[in-house]
Amino acid sequence: MNVVLDPVHGYIEMDEIVQELLATPQMQRLRRIKQLGFSNLVYPGANHTRFEHSLGAMHLASMLMKNLDSIGEGKKKEIRAAALLHDVGHGPFSHVTENVIDKYTRHRHDDVKEIVGKGEIKEVLKKHGISPGDLAKHVKGETSLGQILSSEIDVDRMDYLVRDAHYTGVAFGIVDYNRLINQMHFYEDRLVVDYGGLKAAESLLVSRFWMNTSVYYHHVTRISEAMCSKAVEYMIKNGELDPARLRQMDDTDLTAAMRNASGYAGELARRLDARRLYKRALYTGLEDAGKGVLKHRDKIERTEKEIAELAGVDPQCVIVDIPKTPEMLEMKAMIKADHRLIPLNEASHFVSILQEAHMDNWRMGVYSPKEHCEAVGKAAKEYFNVKKATKQFKLSDLEKT
Amino acid sequence: MNVVLDPVHGYIEMDEIVQELLATPQMQRLRRIKQLGFSNLVYPGANHTRFEHSLGAMHLASMLMKNLDSIGEGKKKEIRAAALLHDVGHGPFSHVTENVIDKYTRHRHDDVKEIVGKGEIKEVLKKHGISPGDLAKHVKGETSLGQILSSEIDVDRMDYLVRDAHYTGVAFGIVDYNRLINQMHFYEDRLVVDYGGLKAAESLLVSRFWMNTSVYYHHVTRISEAMCSKAVEYMIKNGELDPARLRQMDDTDLTAAMRNASGYAGELARRLDARRLYKRALYTGLEDAGKGVLKHRDKIERTEKEIAELAGVDPQCVIVDIPKTPEMLEMKAMIKADHRLIPLNEASHFVSILQEAHMDNWRMGVYSPKEHCEAVGKAAKEYFNVKKATKQFKLSDLEKT
Amino acid sequence: MNVVLDPVHGYIEMDEIVQELLATPQMQRLRRIKQLGFSNLVYPGANHTRFEHSLGAMHLASMLMKNLDSIGEGKKKEIRAAALLHDVGHGPFSHVTENVIDKYTRHRHDDVKEIVGKGEIKEVLKKHGISPGDLAKHVKGETSLGQILSSEIDVDRMDYLVRDAHYTGVAFGIVDYNRLINQMHFYEDRLVVDYGGLKAAESLLVSRFWMNTSVYYHHVTRISEAMCSKAVEYMIKNGELDPARLRQMDDTDLTAAMRNASGYAGELARRLDARRLYKRALYTGLEDAGKGVLKHRDKIERTEKEIAELAGVDPQCVIVDIPKTPEMLEMKAMIKADHRLIPLNEASHFVSILQEAHMDNWRMGVYSPKEHCEAVGKAAKEYFNVKKATKQFKLSDLEKT
Amino acid sequence: MNVVLDPVHGYIEMDEIVQELLATPQMQRLRRIKQLGFSNLVYPGANHTRFEHSLGAMHLASMLMKNLDSIGEGKKKEIRAAALLHDVGHGPFSHVTENVIDKYTRHRHDDVKEIVGKGEIKEVLKKHGISPGDLAKHVKGETSLGQILSSEIDVDRMDYLVRDAHYTGVAFGIVDYNRLINQMHFYEDRLVVDYGGLKAAESLLVSRFWMNTSVYYHHVTRISEAMCSKAVEYMIKNGELDPARLRQMDDTDLTAAMRNASGYAGELARRLDARRLYKRALYTGLEDAGKGVLKHRDKIERTEKEIAELAGVDPQCVIVDIPKTPEMLEMKAMIKADHRLIPLNEASHFVSILQEAHMDNWRMGVYSPKEHCEAVGKAAKEYFNVKKATKQFKLSDLEKT
Repeated sequence: MNVVLDPVHGYIEMDEIVQELLATPQMQRLRRIKQLGFSNLVYPGANHTRFEHSLGAMHLASMLMKNLDSIGEGKKKEIRAAALLHDVGHGPFSHVTENVIDKYTRHRHDDVKEIVGKGEIKEVLKKHGISPGDLAKHVKGETSLGQILSSEIDVDRMDYLVRDAHYTGVAFGIVDYNRLINQMHFYEDRLVVDYGGLKAAESLLVSRFWMNTSVYYHHVTRISEAMCSKAVEYMIKNGELDPARLRQMDDTDLTAAMRNASGYAGELARRLDARRLYKRALYTGLEDAGKGVLKHRDKIERTEKEIAELAGVDPQCVIVDIPKTPEMLEMKAMIKADHRLIPLNEASHFVSILQEAHMDNWRMGVYSPKEHCEAVGKAAKEYFNVKKATKQFKLSDLEKT
Repeated sequence: MNVVLDPVHGYIEMDEIVQELLATPQMQRLRRIKQLGFSNLVYPGANHTRFEHSLGAMHLASMLMKNLDSIGEGKKKEIRAAALLHDVGHGPFSHVTENVIDKYTRHRHDDVKEIVGKGEIKEVLKKHGISPGDLAKHVKGETSLGQILSSEIDVDRMDYLVRDAHYTGVAFGIVDYNRLINQMHFYEDRLVVDYGGLKAAESLLVSRFWMNTSVYYHHVTRISEAMCSKAVEYMIKNGELDPARLRQMDDTDLTAAMRNASGYAGELARRLDARRLYKRALYTGLEDAGKGVLKHRDKIERTEKEIAELAGVDPQCVIVDIPKTPEMLEMKAMIKADHRLIPLNEASHFVSILQEAHMDNWRMGVYSPKEHCEAVGKAAKEYFNVKKATKQFKLSDLEKT
Repeated sequence: MNVVLDPVHGYIEMDEIVQELLATPQMQRLRRIKQLGFSNLVYPGANHTRFEHSLGAMHLASMLMKNLDSIGEGKKKEIRAAALLHDVGHGPFSHVTENVIDKYTRHRHDDVKEIVGKGEIKEVLKKHGISPGDLAKHVKGETSLGQILSSEIDVDRMDYLVRDAHYTGVAFGIVDYNRLINQMHFYEDRLVVDYGGLKAAESLLVSRFWMNTSVYYHHVTRISEAMCSKAVEYMIKNGELDPARLRQMDDTDLTAAMRNASGYAGELARRLDARRLYKRALYTGLEDAGKGVLKHRDKIERTEKEIAELAGVDPQCVIVDIPKTPEMLEMKAMIKADHRLIPLNEASHFVSILQEAHMDNWRMGVYSPKEHCEAVGKAAKEYFNVKKATKQFKLSDLEKT
Repeated sequence: MNVVLDPVHGYIEMDEIVQELLATPQMQRLRRIKQLGFSNLVYPGANHTRFEHSLGAMHLASMLMKNLDSIGEGKKKEIRAAALLHDVGHGPFSHVTENVIDKYTRHRHDDVKEIVGKGEIKEVLKKHGISPGDLAKHVKGETSLGQILSSEIDVDRMDYLVRDAHYTGVAFGIVDYNRLINQMHFYEDRLVVDYGGLKAAESLLVSRFWMNTSVYYHHVTRISEAMCSKAVEYMIKNGELDPARLRQMDDTDLTAAMRNASGYAGELARRLDARRLYKRALYTGLEDAGKGVLKHRDKIERTEKEIAELAGVDPQCVIVDIPKTPEMLEMKAMIKADHRLIPLNEASHFVSILQEAHMDNWRMGVYSPKEHCEAVGKAAKEYFNVKKATKQFKLSDLEKT
């Protein structure tokens, strides 16, 4: 057994298959893909990568399976491999490029079948008698054992919540994962949390809630990611970037490509490098915006153009960001009490009300260069028919840094 | 400046008055008074004392006042002294003996006027030109500056939440107190939290919520504290313990006295020493118990006797514990936003709903020796007219260890 | 499996035998015995107990044995029990009373045969088929497996170094014990550290070195412990304290007894309560004192009397404290490299030189009430023929607080 | 005052000048320069950047100056600015490119005069009345106040030791910097540590020692850095890279350039990306190598060529790495005791012997592709006349991961 030192979990043991998979160029690429995209523009410590997160998820999967005697050694190895490979499908800057890649290649990041079915990874899997197809199903959470990696409460989110907290410095991003993992097992083919793990499960929800408001939905992150995503799509349309190649790039590749890009994309690259970000022209919660805004999600480009027209500015000066309405999937995790399974948000009143508070985190934003903010803001308000009350109070909640 | 090393805050600086007050026997006594009474029966690390908590509160008060230029040096010294002395009125095992002491001496723990107005403490205060009467008012939160020590969000609860978490090991008992303290100042004679501290204030509420469910309301703590309190009252009635003297005792004094006590009190002492605790005969939430049970709070003794009769056991075998309905005073802290003051639970939707969840923590308990649990439980249910449904599910939430 | 939450190791699992042993009054007594005697007079957080340390040692023993397949389940249970019971022989305030107890009862704290061979503990052991005699041998490190508990690098010192650091706040008292434990196994009946654990073993030595200078040898600790020990012996000679009974007391018993004691012992009790400690009249390192002073260790009482005479003060005003020359037993731990065993201080140059530095920590002290310090100091210097140069520089190294 | 959250120090306050300097593209570039070059190939968490380290050093400088009333507000601002800018002269991957940049441009990383004397930084400094020349002198430690940034014990090394420990996970890389900073002040124009800070200064030395062996001198780091440095020099000689431009690059620029480079440099880039590193053909300590090897430091290229010839391999297959003999500058820090200044290694015996142990960390290495290791190793031994005894034992000390 070899070990590697991880600032979050301490020593992580690596058996043969783990070492061999780590040695593939596909896994080594993850060393150069930031876990949190551009969050380091808000939290300067957030430079951690998908590589260490993958190690962490594998480690937690091992811990979880340690006491599950019903799973054979072969299957355990398979799940460890799947945990290690679960993010191998991420494009540069992780989620930043996910939607664009999906739009042009029809692959989301957890769609790893093709990647693990060829090249060095395939060879390693073959040597250990693991079918790439089975492994890909585990990653997607389509198998029973796959729930360990991908379900309401899985090792993936346990690791990233704790890890993101460690590197941002956000104190509340902790999860009592030792306890949680000890209380998880399979019951009638479902991965469930035993009643003794209820408080630990609640801790995961608090952590999720806290990281959402402080980190994942931070407007500076949203803006810089929207800018990057914009540049990428511009380059694709311009023929300067091949979507299939994009998916195999690392952060370095994409950054270099953007810096070399012509016009708008190059300008966005220089802005990101110098942290000269677009600003919030309009930024509003669901209550004030009205649910009607959600239908714009399917035609963002047109919406941006129309607002730009209304404001009398170049369309490139308007970025519209309308997130999906938030959901905390974790709430549907199954708690086992007295031989019954109960969804977490029914078992815990606390969790049920966290759900409510969670909706408050949703914000839509219209972003533009500082000098056009006033005009664009005015136009956007008119366009979306947002009432006068700016609710500055509610908003500034997120305005740190 | 001398320093002392504190596991929670690191180095704590002590100026002259602090060192002199620490040297008084009244403050030294706090070294031998456990901060959390009998919580160490659940969390073995919880052996910390009022002495270190007093140092911590003084330290946080200094930090809070550092940037408040409107407070003169003299006043700052006064508040530091008050922070250090704020718990000097605690009896043995802190809150465990508070109600009995109050009942027989009409002094609650924050009623320190008498204590600081005589002996060594008076001398130190006099030397530094501080009036004991003024200081006692600060401790009670009856002055403007006193809000630093005693108000909705004060250094007292910041320190104890963080400290209790450190010693119990409960992960979520953290408070972003550095941020919170930096955002607090006086506005129109009120100690308020600036808007930038809203998330930090929320962190305090989460911490409070978590510590309540995990530690402060843990049934094993409640039971052992009820047993101790019972023994103390028995001794007072028996003439074996003088209430005025009790208030000046430390944990050692009281434990030794209980061990030497006759009959019931001695028996309870031996039970506590050996952790042979009473068990829950009835344990139920407010919803199931009905608000009617609260009126029994004024006549616990009679209630116990009647239940004992109904069960056919000795009255000493029944302890009824009906806490006040919970309140989280912190929710009323004032947040300052755009020159307006808004209560925390209005400024933060999250906090407002925590309030709701908080009510779920309330439990009443009827405790008795294991061998009488069944009979007493049955009698208590009948007596309080608690419906059949035992709601074991909800209850076991607290049943760890 | 039940669990208990420990601030140092997190959740500790307790199987049946562990729970049953914990429930005995002998183990419950350890809840009221401070791990570090009077160190809380220097480090206010150091109120932790032998109870939690025992749990911690048991936990580390379990971890260490997890991967040692050559040890059967029965033997593992035996060692877990022994780890839990290894400190059950401690008297009040741990090491403070050890020498006196030894002098009058010929029992050191690790001499547990008698204690585990009767009463509740014996019953539990019997139920689980464990011989008290075998267990006592493990505790003394007289068996092969006993090395886990008591040898150069054992779970006992791993736990207490880390635990004492946690509660004092001393930053460097950490040990990379996860790594160390993972690298330990039996080789030809010796518990050895594999070469991969060399750095981790070094970390233990650094920790030991640091804790010695900062905590264990702190002069305030030494003084208060000497005062307590003095009072205890006085009471024994006076017939106020039975040595056999002393060994079964907890801190509360002894403190109460001292407070009630007559004369000198009572006075010392009041001094300890109020932290009115003796001061250093003479305090000097081995180099300046000369090795000759060591021979006084066998006749401390006479030495004290003679110094007192020379100084013209009451013998009760002189306490002489001459520690053994320090040794770091850990240095003799065996490192296994390429099928050879090499002592740690040969395998690691760093460790070999730590040994040297370690000698600097030794100090002898002559203590007396403040008002007699000058006279006693002068007399002591003359008596021990200590040269003029007081080396204040070297000494003040330890003078914090 | 704005704040930013740092995982190491918590909230860091930023006044106007700090915010303005951070907003310059020169400082933003540091976001993309890894603090530890290629150490993340050993410690996967070590992805932190010069940007956060610069913030940290500025923060510690502020703390240090807080109580130094003799320094005026203007000077304090100047030092804060200098602390923030002290690493603005680093090339990509920090120290990895330092020697090459120095060789071709005659600028070391702390030679910032040119950089701060033009562009956006100059403008900010001018606005605040700070002379770029003065600031550059502070950075080099050539002024009295500059000792805060650059001297035997300065905020630079305090921050990086603690920060590197946080991100690698190495437990012992801690420094009691709160205590240390509190004990530092100017005495006769020297920045000295008061006697009360001696133990804290020792903690810094332990940390340095530990980080040297575990991180800074780790052979995998040395190898990958040597490979990168080799590639860079190859590109310069080949006309593919301009040294002046190199100095302004970030990690992305250099990585992209290396990937695009022809021949040997491109091959090394692909090796680094895939972590197919050269291996140790010879790796030996000073004792075995003999001091004579040090003279090869001035003619590494020729040495490599000659070894390659001897081994019958391409010169590109041989990398010789002969570090300077180690020194711990910190040992010369001045301790102030009783109005005398004494070097740290005289004031502390412990430190003096650490120096000795420190020499053991030195290793020279000859690296080559795995397939040539045997031949190259044999040739190198012959070439350097290294005796037979391979001392595998001593060496493997560093061989983790």
